[in-house]
Amino acid sequence: MKNISFLVLSLFILNACSNKKTKPFTASNSTIDYTQFVSPFIGTSKMGHVFPGATAPFGMVQLSPQTNFETMFENGHYNPKTYDYCAGYQYKDSTIIGFSHTNLSGTGHSDLGDFLVMPTIGDLVLDPLKTNDNKKGFYSTFSHDNEEASPGYYKVMLDSYDIKAELTTSDRVGFHQYTFPKSDNAHIILDMVYNVYQYENKNVWTFIRVENDSTVTGYRQTKGWARDRKVFFAMKFSKPFKSYGHKKYDQIIYDGFYRKFKQFENFPEMAGKNIRAYFNFDTKANEKIQIKMALSSVSSAGALKNLQTEIPGWNFEKTKSKTKEKWNKELSKIEIKTIAESDKTTFYTALYHTMLSPIIYEDVDGQYRGLDQNIHVSDDFTNYTVFSLWDTYRALHPLFNIIQPKRNNDMVKSMLAHYDQSVHHMLPIWSHYANENWCMIGYHATSVIADALVKHVGDFDKEHALQASFNTSNVDYYDGIGDYKKYHFVPEDKNSSSVSKTLEYAYDDWCIAQIAKQVAKPEIESEYLKRSEYYKNVYDVSIGFMRPKLSNGTFKKEFDPLDTEGQGFIEGNAWNYGLYVPQDIDNMIAMMGGKERFSQHLDSLFTMNLDDKYIEKNEDITRDGLIGNYVHGNEPSHHIPYLYNWTGHPEKTQAVVRMIMNTMYGPTVDGLCGNDDAGQMSAWYVFSSLGFYPVTPGSPNYALGSPLVKEAKIHLDNGKTLMIRAENQSKDHVYVKRVMLNGIPITNNQISHHNIENGGHLVFEMSGHPNK
Amino acid sequence: MKNISFLVLSLFILNACSNKKTKPFTASNSTIDYTQFVSPFIGTSKMGHVFPGATAPFGMVQLSPQTNFETMFENGHYNPKTYDYCAGYQYKDSTIIGFSHTNLSGTGHSDLGDFLVMPTIGDLVLDPLKTNDNKKGFYSTFSHDNEEASPGYYKVMLDSYDIKAELTTSDRVGFHQYTFPKSDNAHIILDMVYNVYQYENKNVWTFIRVENDSTVTGYRQTKGWARDRKVFFAMKFSKPFKSYGHKKYDQIIYDGFYRKFKQFENFPEMAGKNIRAYFNFDTKANEKIQIKMALSSVSSAGALKNLQTEIPGWNFEKTKSKTKEKWNKELSKIEIKTIAESDKTTFYTALYHTMLSPIIYEDVDGQYRGLDQNIHVSDDFTNYTVFSLWDTYRALHPLFNIIQPKRNNDMVKSMLAHYDQSVHHMLPIWSHYANENWCMIGYHATSVIADALVKHVGDFDKEHALQASFNTSNVDYYDGIGDYKKYHFVPEDKNSSSVSKTLEYAYDDWCIAQIAKQVAKPEIESEYLKRSEYYKNVYDVSIGFMRPKLSNGTFKKEFDPLDTEGQGFIEGNAWNYGLYVPQDIDNMIAMMGGKERFSQHLDSLFTMNLDDKYIEKNEDITRDGLIGNYVHGNEPSHHIPYLYNWTGHPEKTQAVVRMIMNTMYGPTVDGLCGNDDAGQMSAWYVFSSLGFYPVTPGSPNYALGSPLVKEAKIHLDNGKTLMIRAENQSKDHVYVKRVMLNGIPITNNQISHHNIENGGHLVFEMSGHPNK
Repeated sequence: MKNISFLVLSLFILNACSNKKTKPFTASNSTIDYTQFVSPFIGTSKMGHVFPGATAPFGMVQLSPQTNFETMFENGHYNPKTYDYCAGYQYKDSTIIGFSHTNLSGTGHSDLGDFLVMPTIGDLVLDPLKTNDNKKGFYSTFSHDNEEASPGYYKVMLDSYDIKAELTTSDRVGFHQYTFPKSDNAHIILDMVYNVYQYENKNVWTFIRVENDSTVTGYRQTKGWARDRKVFFAMKFSKPFKSYGHKKYDQIIYDGFYRKFKQFENFPEMAGKNIRAYFNFDTKANEKIQIKMALSSVSSAGALKNLQTEIPGWNFEKTKSKTKEKWNKELSKIEIKTIAESDKTTFYTALYHTMLSPIIYEDVDGQYRGLDQNIHVSDDFTNYTVFSLWDTYRALHPLFNIIQPKRNNDMVKSMLAHYDQSVHHMLPIWSHYANENWCMIGYHATSVIADALVKHVGDFDKEHALQASFNTSNVDYYDGIGDYKKYHFVPEDKNSSSVSKTLEYAYDDWCIAQIAKQVAKPEIESEYLKRSEYYKNVYDVSIGFMRPKLSNGTFKKEFDPLDTEGQGFIEGNAWNYGLYVPQDIDNMIAMMGGKERFSQHLDSLFTMNLDDKYIEKNEDITRDGLIGNYVHGNEPSHHIPYLYNWTGHPEKTQAVVRMIMNTMYGPTVDGLCGNDDAGQMSAWYVFSSLGFYPVTPGSPNYALGSPLVKEAKIHLDNGKTLMIRAENQSKDHVYVKRVMLNGIPITNNQISHHNIENGGHLVFEMSGHPNK
Repeated sequence: MKNISFLVLSLFILNACSNKKTKPFTASNSTIDYTQFVSPFIGTSKMGHVFPGATAPFGMVQLSPQTNFETMFENGHYNPKTYDYCAGYQYKDSTIIGFSHTNLSGTGHSDLGDFLVMPTIGDLVLDPLKTNDNKKGFYSTFSHDNEEASPGYYKVMLDSYDIKAELTTSDRVGFHQYTFPKSDNAHIILDMVYNVYQYENKNVWTFIRVENDSTVTGYRQTKGWARDRKVFFAMKFSKPFKSYGHKKYDQIIYDGFYRKFKQFENFPEMAGKNIRAYFNFDTKANEKIQIKMALSSVSSAGALKNLQTEIPGWNFEKTKSKTKEKWNKELSKIEIKTIAESDKTTFYTALYHTMLSPIIYEDVDGQYRGLDQNIHVSDDFTNYTVFSLWDTYRALHPLFNIIQPKRNNDMVKSMLAHYDQSVHHMLPIWSHYANENWCMIGYHATSVIADALVKHVGDFDKEHALQASFNTSNVDYYDGIGDYKKYHFVPEDKNSSSVSKTLEYAYDDWCIAQIAKQVAKPEIESEYLKRSEYYKNVYDVSIGFMRPKLSNGTFKKEFDPLDTEGQGFIEGNAWNYGLYVPQDIDNMIAMMGGKERFSQHLDSLFTMNLDDKYIEKNEDITRDGLIGNYVHGNEPSHHIPYLYNWTGHPEKTQAVVRMIMNTMYGPTVDGLCGNDDAGQMSAWYVFSSLGFYPVTPGSPNYALGSPLVKEAKIHLDNGKTLMIRAENQSKDHVYVKRVMLNGIPITNNQISHHNIENGGHLVFEMSGHPNK
């Protein structure tokens, strides 16, 4: 998407208003197939980092094609383009090397890619790219013309072999269906070497057992983004293989297996750092070979139990349709009418993207691997992992509090279990398959907890949650917390990204104060309210920017508020990130010179021209995600468009959010302007489309924006419905004239969760002109 | 020990007889401390490969000093002397690098050495040998004058640090007690890098958590002799450490830990391929720091449970004394009187060595890691591992059938569990910490099962045992079984060591026939009796030796019956190994030319001069273990001294076994002439000392030899006692004039288990002259 300046866009909007009346809201139609509006390919081009493969809502298995082979480890070097392939797939590619069972959605760093399966025919080739004698590897070419994806289903023709590949999943089982041509030399390759980038070096150990002529089990341990990650599997073939074998790529120190047996064919036990196995078949024309592969964090026995419980039979269509049904259940929680039909695709795909993580992380019997690497049982909750909290506390978890309260409660309980198992006695920062990968900053689990508490979501142990939050925020060796407590800011000479950390700790501390308030611990509340004001200590009034301060109390001398590197901020600059005081917006604005000056700062932010030199430095900031110097492609700016509300210029918020929705999102493969970040980018869109946004998670309030929908019905878990209507809505009617909640006008540009948690009617009166 | 020729020794024995009367047998004295007769140092010099450290009978923890640092990995090369250090200790050494918790006893290949702990004072040094700037490593010098070992206890002064180290164990917990000098710079090093040889490359992964100021947990996975071995630990210090840290020796790919925290000091979570941790203390003069370290195959939670259950307190003396009591209970099962007092030391140390493996391999709650790497529960048995079956089926398991029937029953059940978990559907060959290391040949678990069955030991499922044995012997891809079944011998052109395999398969098949007989399956019995005769197919009547045969039915042309390499035998030559037909001795002798000719073959075997070139080839055959060309230091010959019984010359058996007992064993540090082989060498000594030996396990019969004891009482599990008396016994009265069992003379040089299983009196009348 192009960088369209705010002023130009505003003029465009102002000049093209209309006054069509919207139809009255129709009753819920449960027969609508909402999956038709989801295109999993949206965001698979450029930097969205989402995958197009099959998965169930919040499913443990993400079975998706891997196209990243051009970027693999070759000649001892990694291809620097690997950042593009965090989800294993780029739409521009024309080759597939197989289908792997785990993929992250939208993250800015990579991992996973477990258990790559690839069907081939002809001479057996076990090298993915090319053989030692320079012949073609086992990859296949494919065309998007022969590719199809919908929630829980993926299909592609593997042209190199004339094999049709179809994929679906249950929660814990990947279900493959390959339609072969006639062949007496057909193969299914199980590549245990493959990882989503950092190709050969992530493996710690792999293990495969061929239990019988159609069942295979095993596991893999990797040391990627998650340092001690173990994934177990159980795999069943619909047809017995006629033979099988493997190739081992690592040095053998002592190995009685190979010394004794000297055979890699039909030998049922394989282990080593890097192994590729294959299974051979004869196939008739159009013969289908199906594979079910279940995962477990516990053991291969656990995986087998998952397999037998979730998909005991061989009916591919049945699994596909059950998963589609699950998706419909989730997607239909928000029914919308839109101005343009294509907005439905953008909206429901965004909604789909909010349900790809966190993922269920336990076996059907409740056993799961904990952070301590011991096996635990989730007695009263479902355990989840993949908490990219620096991203998702902002809008994703608040969205869950509306449409997934039960899951969000389970997620909080998962975080508390993580805390219980943490040797640091910390809540998760980035919970990653029984690991803490420590990615990004802050301790934002406290925000998720506070937000759930103030919105009365869940039945988790509040006292325990407060204790966990308190302990987390007092681990002095973590990322400058000790210094933060000592100096009342994080000193830049002792910690990098010191301003970002100060601002986010202050916000998180405000969240802890909210938790303490809920639990009636006034002393803790008061202590943390004090800590929540530490943001003031990094504001340099002389230049009007948040600025890194040294431990001697002086500000860092060299300072460029446009730069994203070495200026006290992480993945952002002072212009954007310096506005991060969601817990105390009025005071921040006052501190920064008052409403008008702040509003002008925002105007400049959205319209200024940012030099290339500032963009090239950070892979999380790209031209595609920029509006002026405003970075929508990364999280620290996500609340900024709504800050106009606090400056007396809500009309600017309204215009900007509509512009962002129209320019930063879309129904095309490049319809995400940056990493979806485990659903946060999409959650921003879902909220903004509905006309409100949680600027301050941990408070019950939502800032009002400008809805993109014409109508929306949000079906709440309590059986009530929140009805949203944008009257006089059109593409150009981006301004809100008046908002009525249950017939009462709203004058402060915000609504409270407590006013909507029992349903109601939220009516926006739209207009082509700003309501000054 | 020197190679003393049979004839010289015979003359010596014949010329020095006496006629002293032995005293009548005294009643059992339960107050005798039998551990006083055990010297764990016996066999720690040269090739015994036993360890002197502390362990409980069949205990899961073997806590022992490691002296093998001279042989470690240096300058990119392994020191070829590493074979000497299978148990981590050589008596000749003067330095110790620490105390590790797992050690194999007497094996001919190495593994284990988990969790090396070393106390030091002064500047912290984390390199075991020398630092990068060429300073001394953390090892300490020591003197045997300040070293002490007894069953369940080990003590040494670490001279380099003036630290007294004491060790004891319960079944699953190692208990360290270090008496420090005054120091403000004392350390306990936890070296996760160390393995018993193949120094740095055995580690797959290591993981440490510092749970609090005195508790540490973690695990290690290694790929040594056992390919997928995982050992978990929980460690408690009696005194909180004042600080701690670690050093990581492997390349970091991505590791949020180090990126985020940049600290190796006081950071409680460590992981990587190679890590050394340290814990710092201040110590007063003579202050004791104690450490308890529990192991588990399941998880660190399992290890913690083991620790808390077995040693909840800090009373070192109590654990030491409880374990001593356990040893006394086991050792007192055989009470002996001896000619020389030193024979008691040799005997009880041998008896001690028979109880160092197999080892208990389950947590206190019965959970254990199975061969399939899943966690199982041993509902009705105790699970064991370390089955070095090619060695131990010969005499160790038969000995267990007399003095450890309950444990042997559990061992058979452990083997059946192994079978159930085996992807090959095979009984163990060499069961090794939830792994099969495939070492050596045959499927001798069948012998252990048959021997237990015919001796009415145990309550394991006989039908299941037959099925397991049947399946094991029909895994065609295992070590030539398919060819063996096809050709009725193992062809040398298709499999190495073909004669050894043919002979041992034939014997094992005879064992299966015995099992089938017990289960009343006459068809299987008959089939396997046929297979048991396949040994005949590798006998070359033209040269009078077993000889490798090719698949075309001709014998291998080049053949040297003295050579141990490439001649169809493994770790032996045709002279020795070619006599291995224990299931059909009479027929073998007839086939080989009759009794006299066979007797002469044995005479030559014991007296001939073997050229050095035949000895240098195999590390399991050394001058120390040789008598002529007879190899006592390795197992294939162990039955041979008793074969004279079948030639009409039992007096030669009598003279030879006494000579072997006196020359191949002794109460000194070099008192084992070869690897103790997981107790088999010692079991040979225990049996032979008592005057009989199980030449054919799987039959109830024992061949009579010449007892070394004057008297023995064997306390059986059924409460009965088998009394053995050697009348007119002396050093020179090696010949047996008459043997009476319960007053009835024995004329066939053997006794049956059924005649002794309810106790009784076995009286040998000894003489200085052969009874022709």
